[in-house]
Amino acid sequence: MSPFKKPSLTAKEKLRPISGFPELLPEERRVEVDWIDQIRTIFESYGFTSIEPRIVEPIDVLLKQGDTDKEIYTLGRLLDTPNSDKEPTFGLHYDLTIPMARYVAANMGKLDFPFKRYQIQKAWRGERPQDGRFREFMQCDIDVVDTREVPLHFDVEIPAIMNQALASINAGPVFTKINNRKILEGYYSGLDMGNTSEAIRLIDKVDKIGFDGVADLLKAELELNNKTIDKIFQLTQIHGSGQQVVDQIQNLGVHSELLDQGLTELTFVMQELEHIDKQAFAVDLSIARGLAYYTGTVYETRFAEYPAYPSICGGGRYDNLVGDFVSKRLPGIGISIGLSRIFTKLLKEKRINTDKKSPTEILVIHSRGAPYRLVNKTAQTLRQRGFNVEQYHEDRKLNAQLKYAEGKGIPWIWFPPVNVDGEHQVKNSVSREQQPADPATWMPGKGK
Amino acid sequence: MSPFKKPSLTAKEKLRPISGFPELLPEERRVEVDWIDQIRTIFESYGFTSIEPRIVEPIDVLLKQGDTDKEIYTLGRLLDTPNSDKEPTFGLHYDLTIPMARYVAANMGKLDFPFKRYQIQKAWRGERPQDGRFREFMQCDIDVVDTREVPLHFDVEIPAIMNQALASINAGPVFTKINNRKILEGYYSGLDMGNTSEAIRLIDKVDKIGFDGVADLLKAELELNNKTIDKIFQLTQIHGSGQQVVDQIQNLGVHSELLDQGLTELTFVMQELEHIDKQAFAVDLSIARGLAYYTGTVYETRFAEYPAYPSICGGGRYDNLVGDFVSKRLPGIGISIGLSRIFTKLLKEKRINTDKKSPTEILVIHSRGAPYRLVNKTAQTLRQRGFNVEQYHEDRKLNAQLKYAEGKGIPWIWFPPVNVDGEHQVKNSVSREQQPADPATWMPGKGK
Repeated sequence: MSPFKKPSLTAKEKLRPISGFPELLPEERRVEVDWIDQIRTIFESYGFTSIEPRIVEPIDVLLKQGDTDKEIYTLGRLLDTPNSDKEPTFGLHYDLTIPMARYVAANMGKLDFPFKRYQIQKAWRGERPQDGRFREFMQCDIDVVDTREVPLHFDVEIPAIMNQALASINAGPVFTKINNRKILEGYYSGLDMGNTSEAIRLIDKVDKIGFDGVADLLKAELELNNKTIDKIFQLTQIHGSGQQVVDQIQNLGVHSELLDQGLTELTFVMQELEHIDKQAFAVDLSIARGLAYYTGTVYETRFAEYPAYPSICGGGRYDNLVGDFVSKRLPGIGISIGLSRIFTKLLKEKRINTDKKSPTEILVIHSRGAPYRLVNKTAQTLRQRGFNVEQYHEDRKLNAQLKYAEGKGIPWIWFPPVNVDGEHQVKNSVSREQQPADPATWMPGKGK
Repeated sequence: MSPFKKPSLTAKEKLRPISGFPELLPEERRVEVDWIDQIRTIFESYGFTSIEPRIVEPIDVLLKQGDTDKEIYTLGRLLDTPNSDKEPTFGLHYDLTIPMARYVAANMGKLDFPFKRYQIQKAWRGERPQDGRFREFMQCDIDVVDTREVPLHFDVEIPAIMNQALASINAGPVFTKINNRKILEGYYSGLDMGNTSEAIRLIDKVDKIGFDGVADLLKAELELNNKTIDKIFQLTQIHGSGQQVVDQIQNLGVHSELLDQGLTELTFVMQELEHIDKQAFAVDLSIARGLAYYTGTVYETRFAEYPAYPSICGGGRYDNLVGDFVSKRLPGIGISIGLSRIFTKLLKEKRINTDKKSPTEILVIHSRGAPYRLVNKTAQTLRQRGFNVEQYHEDRKLNAQLKYAEGKGIPWIWFPPVNVDGEHQVKNSVSREQQPADPATWMPGKGK
C-alpha cells in the first residue's frame, strides 16, 4: 500500500464540486457536444485537420513563453514520497498553442505545409477561478504553420472562420478588435524607444491601471518623457474601420519601415473583412495581446451584449513560436475560441436550450405479456433505420414506462403488439395522437 | 518568477516523445475521430447520453477501489515549493467508471433513472508502458445505474452494443468471455470457504503464476485442502456456450442459493446473446475481472486473431460502486472499450487506412491573375453547398499548387476563371479528366 496518508474525506466532501472544474449536466453536455460538432464541421470545411497532442509537456516547453509559470499544474505519482526533492518534470498544458507548436516541430518531416490543424481539447490553469475563468476549460483552436512565409490570406480567413463558428453555435452578436503588433513596434521605434516589447507589455495594462498608472511606469522603467508618452497614448486611442485608422496614424507624423508594413497589412485585412461582416470587426490599437510571441495581426473577440465579460476568442500571428524548437523560421497564425467561457455565459443568461436530457427519439414500450424478443426486434428494426431508440428494460406498469419517457423528453412512444401477428402503434408525446405503424416503414412525419 | 529550478532540456529533448503518451499523426487522428463518431452514434442509438466529468478527483475517491494507488498521477502547482510536505489532494482519473460513479452520486437529484450515460474520454495511469498499455489512453464507456434493481435486460444489451461498436470500426473478429461472480462466490461458499473474495483474487492469478502457484497461495493464505482446491480448479476449467456450462457445474455437486442465482442469470444472458452472435460470446469461468466492485455478470473481450494481446473491452455488474458514495443501493452495469489499445494494434497490423491527410475535398486554385475575391467567392460557394474546400492561399506557380493537392490527397482541383465572366473548370486528381463546371450546381458524380 501507499506510504501516502489518506486525507479521509467525508462522504459529503467527496461529492463536493472542485472550484474551477465545472461539470455539465447531461442536458447541458448534449448542447456542448452539438456545439463541438458544429464548430469542427466548419473547421473541416476550410480544410483544417484534427490533432490531439498528449495533455502533458516537459515543464521546459511550457515555461518557454514566459509569464505563465504560476498557473502550471505539475504531474506527480502518488507513490513518490512527498518529501523527496525530486523536481516536477511534466506539466499539464495551459493552452493549445504551445503543444501544437511542439507537435509540429517534432513531426516536421511527416507533415504537409502549410500545416492547417484544428484542436478541440481541454487545457488547465492553476489560477484563481472567477467569472468566465476556470481551471479546466475547453478550447477550440485553428492554426496555420508554414516553412515559408504565411500569406496575408490567412489573416483574413482565420477571423472569418471564427466568426462563422460563433454564428453556428448562436453565440449572438460578437465584436472583434484587430491590431497589428508591427504598427505598435514600428511606431515606438519611430519614437526612438529602445525596448519596444517592454513598452507594449506596459501599455497593455491601461485597462487595469489607467493612463496615469501606465505613464508612471513608462517614466520609471523606460525613462520616457511626457512628449513621447503623449504620442504613445494618442496611438492607443485610435479606433475605426480601416482606411480612416491608417490616415489618423499617418497624421501623427511618426515614421518607420515596420510601421508602414504593419499599416499595409492592416489595410488589406480590414478591407477583406469588410466584405464578410462590416459590423463585427474594427481596428483597436489599444489591444496588444499579452503573450510575447505575437508579431503581426492580433485578434480579440467579445460578446457585443456583454462587453465587460472577458474576451471569448483571441489569437494572432507569430513568427518564431514553432521555429524556436528547431532553430528555423516557421511562421504561423491562429485563433482560439474559449468554448467553456462562452458556454457558461450563455447558460447563465438562459440562452441555451437544455430541454433534451437524452438522445432518445423513440421509447419502445415493454407491453405486458409481449415476448421480450418481439420488443427487442421492434427496437432493433427502428434503430437500424437510423432512429435513436430505447427498448424499455423491463415488464413494468405502463404508467412507470410513460413517466420515464416524459422525464427524458422522449418524443415518440412505440407500442409493439403482444403477439407476433398483432398491430404496432405509435404515439406522439406532445399531440398525444396514437395510430398504427410499421417499424419497417414508419416515418415521424406520418405519425404527427 | 518561479523558485523552481528549470531542468534546461536541450532542443532535441524538448521534442522527444514521452513514453506511454502516444500521439497520432494527422492521417491517423482522422481515423480515430471517425471511430469515435461511429461509436457514439451507436451509443446514442440505444439512448445513452454523453457526460464528461472533470479529469481530476480527490485522491480519496480514486483510492476507494483498492489496488490502484501505484498508478495514480497526482496534481501539484509549479509554484508549490518542492520540499513542502503538503500532501497531494487531487489525482487524474485512471478509468471512467469511478468518475461516473462520483458524478452520479453528486447529481442524484438532477438525473433520470435508470441513468444511461456514455463517456468517451482519456484516462491516465502512471504504470510502466508495454504492448497495448499506455499512460494516456482513450476509453469509450457505457454504463446504466439505477436507484432500484437493474434488470438483466442490460446484461444482454451492453455486450450487444459493445459488439456493434467494435464492428462499426472494423475491429475484426472479437471474442468475449462471460462469467458471473455470483457463480464463483456461490460455488466457493458452497465449498464452505470463508473469504470468497480473497479466493477470487487469488484464483484470478492462474494466467500469471499457473495452477501450482495458485494452489500454493490457497493453501498458505486460506488454509484450503487439496480436495477443495481440486474442486475450485474443476470450476475454472469449464468453458462453453450456455446450458452445457450450467450442466457441467451442476455435475460438480456443489450447492448454494447464490450459485443457483448466478446460473439462472448466466443462462438468460447466454441464451439472448446467442441470438446476436453465436460465435462471439462464450462462458469462461476462469475470468473474474480483478476489480473488487464487480458483483454479477463480468465481460472480457479480446481480438480473436491476437489472443495474446491484452483484453480490448471489459466490464460487468456492480451493486455497490455508486451507492457507496451516498450510503444507498445504486446498482449498475457497464463496459469499457479500450480505444487506444485497439487503435495501436490495428495500426501496427496495417489494418487501418491512413491515406487521407486532411478533410479537404476540393482545392480551389489561385489562377495567376484571377482576382482574390473571385477565388474566394468560388471557394465559399462550394463550401456553402457542404463541400470541404481549401482556397489556395496565394498566387503561386500552378505546379506548387498541384503538388500541395497531391501531398494532401485532395481529390478535386477547381480552376476559377481569371475574370468574372469566364468559365470554371474542375479536374479529378485520379482520372485527370478536366471539364467545365458551375460552382453553384456541380456534383462530384458529374465530373468523373
